[in-house]
Amino acid sequence: MSHDRLLHALRREPVDVTPVWLMRQAGRYLPEYRKLREQAGSFLTLCQNPELACEVTLQPLRRFDLDGAILFSDILTIPEAMGLGLHFIPNEGPHFHHPVRTPADIDKLGVPDMADDLGYVPDAVKLIRRELDGKTPLIGFAGSPWTLATYMVEGGPSKTYQHIKALMFNEPAALHKLLDLLARSVAAYLNAQIAAGAQAVQIFDTWGGVLSPANYRAFSLVYMQQIVARLEPGPDGRVPSILFTKGGGAWLEAMAETGASALGLDWTIDIDNARERVGDKVALQGNADPALLYAKPDIIRTQVHEILTRFGHHPGHVFNLGHGVTPQVDPAHVAALVDAVHEFSIPA
Amino acid sequence: MSHDRLLHALRREPVDVTPVWLMRQAGRYLPEYRKLREQAGSFLTLCQNPELACEVTLQPLRRFDLDGAILFSDILTIPEAMGLGLHFIPNEGPHFHHPVRTPADIDKLGVPDMADDLGYVPDAVKLIRRELDGKTPLIGFAGSPWTLATYMVEGGPSKTYQHIKALMFNEPAALHKLLDLLARSVAAYLNAQIAAGAQAVQIFDTWGGVLSPANYRAFSLVYMQQIVARLEPGPDGRVPSILFTKGGGAWLEAMAETGASALGLDWTIDIDNARERVGDKVALQGNADPALLYAKPDIIRTQVHEILTRFGHHPGHVFNLGHGVTPQVDPAHVAALVDAVHEFSIPA
Repeated sequence: MSHDRLLHALRREPVDVTPVWLMRQAGRYLPEYRKLREQAGSFLTLCQNPELACEVTLQPLRRFDLDGAILFSDILTIPEAMGLGLHFIPNEGPHFHHPVRTPADIDKLGVPDMADDLGYVPDAVKLIRRELDGKTPLIGFAGSPWTLATYMVEGGPSKTYQHIKALMFNEPAALHKLLDLLARSVAAYLNAQIAAGAQAVQIFDTWGGVLSPANYRAFSLVYMQQIVARLEPGPDGRVPSILFTKGGGAWLEAMAETGASALGLDWTIDIDNARERVGDKVALQGNADPALLYAKPDIIRTQVHEILTRFGHHPGHVFNLGHGVTPQVDPAHVAALVDAVHEFSIPA
Repeated sequence: MSHDRLLHALRREPVDVTPVWLMRQAGRYLPEYRKLREQAGSFLTLCQNPELACEVTLQPLRRFDLDGAILFSDILTIPEAMGLGLHFIPNEGPHFHHPVRTPADIDKLGVPDMADDLGYVPDAVKLIRRELDGKTPLIGFAGSPWTLATYMVEGGPSKTYQHIKALMFNEPAALHKLLDLLARSVAAYLNAQIAAGAQAVQIFDTWGGVLSPANYRAFSLVYMQQIVARLEPGPDGRVPSILFTKGGGAWLEAMAETGASALGLDWTIDIDNARERVGDKVALQGNADPALLYAKPDIIRTQVHEILTRFGHHPGHVFNLGHGVTPQVDPAHVAALVDAVHEFSIPA
């Protein structure tokens, strides 16, 4: 049972203990990651080399009793494959050499070829599945169309979202064209991961929470719904899907109508309140404050216990943080959190 | 009526047209501000020199038909007065030379002397009131204790809130001591502004939205409530108070119980939904997306009309953005927004 409790929980089926995985569970807080990253020379090399991506994916599983592996990759592989020139500026994050600003820029873009342009991703998935050997399920992922568009139009991280929101207000048809293209690209990308063996998929809508309710529905949610509708069965049948909108706590009812199997929650909402609102429509994933990993282990244990108690004796809980593990975290604290989830689980 | 429609609306009294002011209405998007800022040499000089702070406060009123002036200052004047060594790093924002990290650091701090350490603020208030000459009401403001503590403990802007949240989880009693000190300091500071003539006050809780619901109540809301309870009447009687928690849309009911006159809304919640939830307890201020100012004027007008229509025929609406005006905005767009508020108002 332990090897597929994650998939059972995502389908709201009974499990022996609550499964747990962590967003960004492979990353800079792990010394073995930093070592490999230095050897590889760049973050993109790690993502684009299937052997290295496989190794990084497996690193946290060797340390912690995690119930899921998540493909090591970047949400910006699709715009990179579209030719935007992805690069990373230290302490600033991702940037594009060729941001998309005008309707003419958008007209030049097409759905990347999944084999020629992004084949390294399904290749990594196959390799990871072989290495995992059925012991732990593998989650694939992609960025949401709105989130990808935000980076593509801004050209990098933004505090004001000046360019994407100017496009949204002034040229909504052009933005919809871009989002439609991205929705078709993300669906093809996730289907390529599923065909290669991904056993669940998560859509990361990192920036959906910077929109008004109406604009969230029109420019983010509807495109995630299209993706969910286009997901194809994998070698072992249909795979569960997880929607995660950071800052989307107000919109859970609408998210639950998309057909996704599960919703990711950040930590600004109580999970018992979320469960009451979505009822038995979807499983819930979350929702510890990622900063909890800066707390002492006994405090971590208390807070994990509280979240499990809030969720209570119901099917469909996958424990996670409300956002990714941050670089300064002590790996021993991650171990304390993961172990506490299993120890304090309330089997459904 | 036009000179005090803002104060009437904050008290949920009838007004002729919906009043409007904008967070950060004085600032870098105005060429006359950038000129004065360059002449002054530093942002802090502008804040700490009452004549310059007065001039900057008045600049947007000369251009736009605004119904309120807001004291030009910085939310970090209190920690600066506590001796933390405030300075600004270009493109990075505010930093402190002496961050507060330990219980021992906290024990060294005291409530600043409002006359000796912060007298330039009430001096600016008096000067602005004299210049405004009763034509436009003046809003004073302060940062919330949680928001001030975040900057003081992190030492500058943060994406992970590592230090303040470690303190919150591991040493809650020490953090409560700091927040209590800040609540007493903010109350004294706002009372000094009120005594000098501020006709309304706003508490800016910029970072309350990064907390879980329970931690928001325990570490941010309760201290804002203490401040509201400590506000003293000014020369003309009690002044209305506005609480603004960015990302606080889920907690409006609790915020409405604090005794504040009005709640500031960001743009991630529909104002009709907010009004239904708080009923007749408080006025509401908001809530256009600040990025709307990047839109073409006819789009700005449409969106203003929609927000006014959503609020509808009720007392107690002050139009504002959901956060501050950003530096790249065209002042002509601000004029379009302000004029549209008055044009499309639905008198209550």
